[in-house]
Amino acid sequence: MTKQDLAACHDRIKPYIHRTPVLTSTLLNEISGAKIFFKCENFQRMGAFKMRGASSAISKLSKAQKSRGVVTHSSGNFAQALSLSAKSLGVKAYIVMPSNAPQVKKDAVKGYGGEIIECPPTLEERERAAAKIKEEKGATFLHPSNNLDVILGQGTAAIELLEDYPDLDYIFTPVGGGGLIAGTALAAHFYGTDCKVIGGEPFEVDDAYRSLQSGKIETNITINTIADGLKTQLGDVNFPIIQKYVSEIIRVEENEIISAMRLIWERMKIIIEPSCAVPFAALLREKDRFKDKKVGIILSGGNIDLNNLPF
Amino acid sequence: MTKQDLAACHDRIKPYIHRTPVLTSTLLNEISGAKIFFKCENFQRMGAFKMRGASSAISKLSKAQKSRGVVTHSSGNFAQALSLSAKSLGVKAYIVMPSNAPQVKKDAVKGYGGEIIECPPTLEERERAAAKIKEEKGATFLHPSNNLDVILGQGTAAIELLEDYPDLDYIFTPVGGGGLIAGTALAAHFYGTDCKVIGGEPFEVDDAYRSLQSGKIETNITINTIADGLKTQLGDVNFPIIQKYVSEIIRVEENEIISAMRLIWERMKIIIEPSCAVPFAALLREKDRFKDKKVGIILSGGNIDLNNLPF
Repeated sequence: MTKQDLAACHDRIKPYIHRTPVLTSTLLNEISGAKIFFKCENFQRMGAFKMRGASSAISKLSKAQKSRGVVTHSSGNFAQALSLSAKSLGVKAYIVMPSNAPQVKKDAVKGYGGEIIECPPTLEERERAAAKIKEEKGATFLHPSNNLDVILGQGTAAIELLEDYPDLDYIFTPVGGGGLIAGTALAAHFYGTDCKVIGGEPFEVDDAYRSLQSGKIETNITINTIADGLKTQLGDVNFPIIQKYVSEIIRVEENEIISAMRLIWERMKIIIEPSCAVPFAALLREKDRFKDKKVGIILSGGNIDLNNLPF
Repeated sequence: MTKQDLAACHDRIKPYIHRTPVLTSTLLNEISGAKIFFKCENFQRMGAFKMRGASSAISKLSKAQKSRGVVTHSSGNFAQALSLSAKSLGVKAYIVMPSNAPQVKKDAVKGYGGEIIECPPTLEERERAAAKIKEEKGATFLHPSNNLDVILGQGTAAIELLEDYPDLDYIFTPVGGGGLIAGTALAAHFYGTDCKVIGGEPFEVDDAYRSLQSGKIETNITINTIADGLKTQLGDVNFPIIQKYVSEIIRVEENEIISAMRLIWERMKIIIEPSCAVPFAALLREKDRFKDKKVGIILSGGNIDLNNLPF
């Protein structure tokens, strides 16, 4: 990957994404001791940074591939992102979802024009259903995080952040499937000036932390975290990038995630989802180390069920 | 009042307020049919436009008056606004609050440096307690809405909105005590180009609507509305301005307020309080009239108890 790859990706997806605002908060700077620049991907189209990666991957396809559609398995933000970017690019999107996925998520995908294929709620069944669509329709399978074009797309949020604030000392992101942090780390490497990238990860799903320790991709046994977007695991495309370019991963407790989320809601008056609060929780947990540093935080998304809040 | 009065007020308070962002939403434009420009006073210091009026009134005082402090009776946003602006200007603030005010509101006032004087929960007792402070301390009484400097201060949000978007056809605000809508109407008159000002008011507390009909200040018998910031009534300073410069008031039902609030939370990912949703609810209620019009909406505030949401 080169800086040109990132720049080309950014140019390619600009028609399909918002350049999201960067917000600051005197109060949260006082609480943390750092100078924080929040990149508000919760204001992104469909409410999450995933719109960047999805637009990147679809817009990279050939005309023939586009005519046959795209397929993914996801019940989260990537399902909505793929549906909406496919619609924007005039491409058909097939979304494999577990039959027990919440109705609100199915409705969101349908609202963005995606076609849902339901399957039993296991990873094997999801993969089988996606493979079937790929075979029957000739659709291109796009993985939510373990795909280089998706990774480059996710990195464009950090490009914009560094264009606005070139001298950031750190950028924090959440770590789930690894697409966002890998893309961010590439962007920080090519666009930053000695800008380190740190991941925030729940102790409950600390596969990325353990993978960096062991040098191989680790899995989670249990996934009891409120940060439902971070239950996924790293892949062979993003893990080498993370190994090479990410400085460290800081793990946080569930109660730290909830209080960080509440602080942002109450003080900044913006809505973020639990996964999105994890990097800010990580900063607060080790705040003494980041005193007076300029810290970018990617606020990854704001899609949350208002009837099911943790406070 | 002249344009110079408004401009001088704006210059005077700039050091103490944020110039808040204006947000737009493709989805809410589609739903309403109008082109809406949301002036985000929920991102204002202490979370509401009241910061503008409070800073305006305090900064206008003489040195001698400032040395003796200011007093008001309020359990809402003006109490916090007066406390914080007084602190910013090095002035003592006495806040008369009913003894049954929620602890969270008392804590907020204390957090901003205000001194709370508790009194029994009736208007008479509040006024008596404020008069006592005025007499004992020589503090200047500042009314939350029926004070010309407060009114001019509240109008500065619309000045900024019209500086950003000079050709708005309408500006909508909520109507409570009348300070915000009166100031907005002055700003629209002097800074707009045929820009009409419309108030949104709950049917449950439609004193302003009835006052405009009858030509005299009407009161509410019951105040059963979720829009707790709008339970107050007009005063003799703001009513003549409203009569002269406000085009009309549109009343809305409680369920319309809650769905408008929810739409803004879910689609824009920002936190607004119930009172703040009222003008958007009013626009939606009569949306056919505003099709393709450029409409500014003052999002008045974002202070809400997250443990007590209407959804």
